[in-house]
Amino acid sequence: MQIVHTIAEIRKLVGPARAEGKLVGLVPTMGAFHAGHLALMSRARHECGFVVVSIFVNPAQFGPSEDYQKYPRDQKSDAEKAEVEGVDVIFAPSVEEMYPEGFGSYIEVVGLTETLEGAVRPGHFRGVAIVVAKLFNIVAPDNAYFGMKDYQQLKVIQKMVRDLDFDLEIIPVPTIRESDGLAMSSRNVYLDTKERAAATILYRALEFAKERVLEGERYPAALEAAIRRFIEQEPLAKIDYVAVVDPDTLEKLEKIGASVLVALAVKIGKTRLIDNNVIFGFKEGAFKTPIPL
Amino acid sequence: MQIVHTIAEIRKLVGPARAEGKLVGLVPTMGAFHAGHLALMSRARHECGFVVVSIFVNPAQFGPSEDYQKYPRDQKSDAEKAEVEGVDVIFAPSVEEMYPEGFGSYIEVVGLTETLEGAVRPGHFRGVAIVVAKLFNIVAPDNAYFGMKDYQQLKVIQKMVRDLDFDLEIIPVPTIRESDGLAMSSRNVYLDTKERAAATILYRALEFAKERVLEGERYPAALEAAIRRFIEQEPLAKIDYVAVVDPDTLEKLEKIGASVLVALAVKIGKTRLIDNNVIFGFKEGAFKTPIPL
Repeated sequence: MQIVHTIAEIRKLVGPARAEGKLVGLVPTMGAFHAGHLALMSRARHECGFVVVSIFVNPAQFGPSEDYQKYPRDQKSDAEKAEVEGVDVIFAPSVEEMYPEGFGSYIEVVGLTETLEGAVRPGHFRGVAIVVAKLFNIVAPDNAYFGMKDYQQLKVIQKMVRDLDFDLEIIPVPTIRESDGLAMSSRNVYLDTKERAAATILYRALEFAKERVLEGERYPAALEAAIRRFIEQEPLAKIDYVAVVDPDTLEKLEKIGASVLVALAVKIGKTRLIDNNVIFGFKEGAFKTPIPL
Repeated sequence: MQIVHTIAEIRKLVGPARAEGKLVGLVPTMGAFHAGHLALMSRARHECGFVVVSIFVNPAQFGPSEDYQKYPRDQKSDAEKAEVEGVDVIFAPSVEEMYPEGFGSYIEVVGLTETLEGAVRPGHFRGVAIVVAKLFNIVAPDNAYFGMKDYQQLKVIQKMVRDLDFDLEIIPVPTIRESDGLAMSSRNVYLDTKERAAATILYRALEFAKERVLEGERYPAALEAAIRRFIEQEPLAKIDYVAVVDPDTLEKLEKIGASVLVALAVKIGKTRLIDNNVIFGFKEGAFKTPIPL
């Protein structure tokens, strides 16, 4: 496995691989690998002849009061894990390589970025969109792999790919969880022992929501209120948002139909965690006839 | 020469050409070809093994009170002219093909789009940037050809290519002029006989500006005022802007140094025309030693 730091170097490696007819897979990451990242790499390895993992803690997607500085970085351990997964090359550019002097462009994906994370973290998705667009143009992958834990990010990128006609496939990969249900996240390292125990409230709230929908709950406002009450049982948890929305548009639903996205952002102590689940509740019109997953 | 209308079709033609090792050239246009467009195609034909010309009157770059509806369209005559230039394929998509239902993204190139055309035509460069980015992703050219008459557009696209890491070369092609100096433009057809005669005022003003700089004028404000007075001699001309700025940043200059951009937007009757010239006046510090072009 090679590790390169410049755009010229990564292009020099990907070009010949593509010329040999290999499918190129890209796994964009911010490093600090956990089993969720490794699942993306494993999937890419399974499907592609040449696998690129990018590691770049992207300043453009962090707000001024967010954790850009303290975001965990461990490229040595990351490289070892990626090598085990059979990754061909790590692309780990500097901030100056990605945003040289004079840089100044952004991409706005209208319609999916105003709610949930976008409402709480202004500019976040502009930062995500620009860095992902750059990575797509630098690596020119056939497939790009994104985790479903960042559900809204996945939808925003899918829309950007459609709107800008990037010639590639976005492959969504299911969230990987700890044995007690906590979604894998690089930010879980911020949690102390008590907080780590409390953090399962997000997963438990999602399971609770699923039960309620399968039992017949059709009213988003009622479901949201019930989820809020459920989370509020945990004294260390402070709700940022609870969203019960359309999984495609991320807009409010009047009634819960065939599917619904439950998305949570909750602070456990000082650590902000997100999680989500798409619940397939009903066939359209088949009220009280839940379809088990 | 083939003419195709869908993204799938143009990709199906470009892919094999690239696989054969041919350099792919793209000439993005809004049709209504004149000698300026043909010069772009001729240059592309000279440098590339496979030449794509796109024809798309892009609604996103027209303001609500602008001439989108009446912009000249003549695909039959355009196809004949392109064939003579040895173009391989015309890509002429519909508005629905480029902006399908649910479309909603834009690209903002910060820092070059706020002045000149950007100041007078809000949203214009967002429209240009998004359609050019889409064409780059659809055709994936090695080279893309743009005329220098739209100087600011050229600079904006060059910056977008750098900022977004598009893997291609932008080739600027000099403005083609009528024998009396009027820059070729699809909008020249709007001019009646009197206006056509008056329209040479833009070229004459640029020549006048060049003389003044070569004679030693170093003060942008003085040069701008002199150009304004010159244009105001023509009763049919109404100045939109006269800019004397840095050719790279498009920002105001304190003094005229090695080079200066003079950019004009002037209404002749109801027709808005633009033109520009980069004047190479002095070696840095070599005041009153003009270097002839």
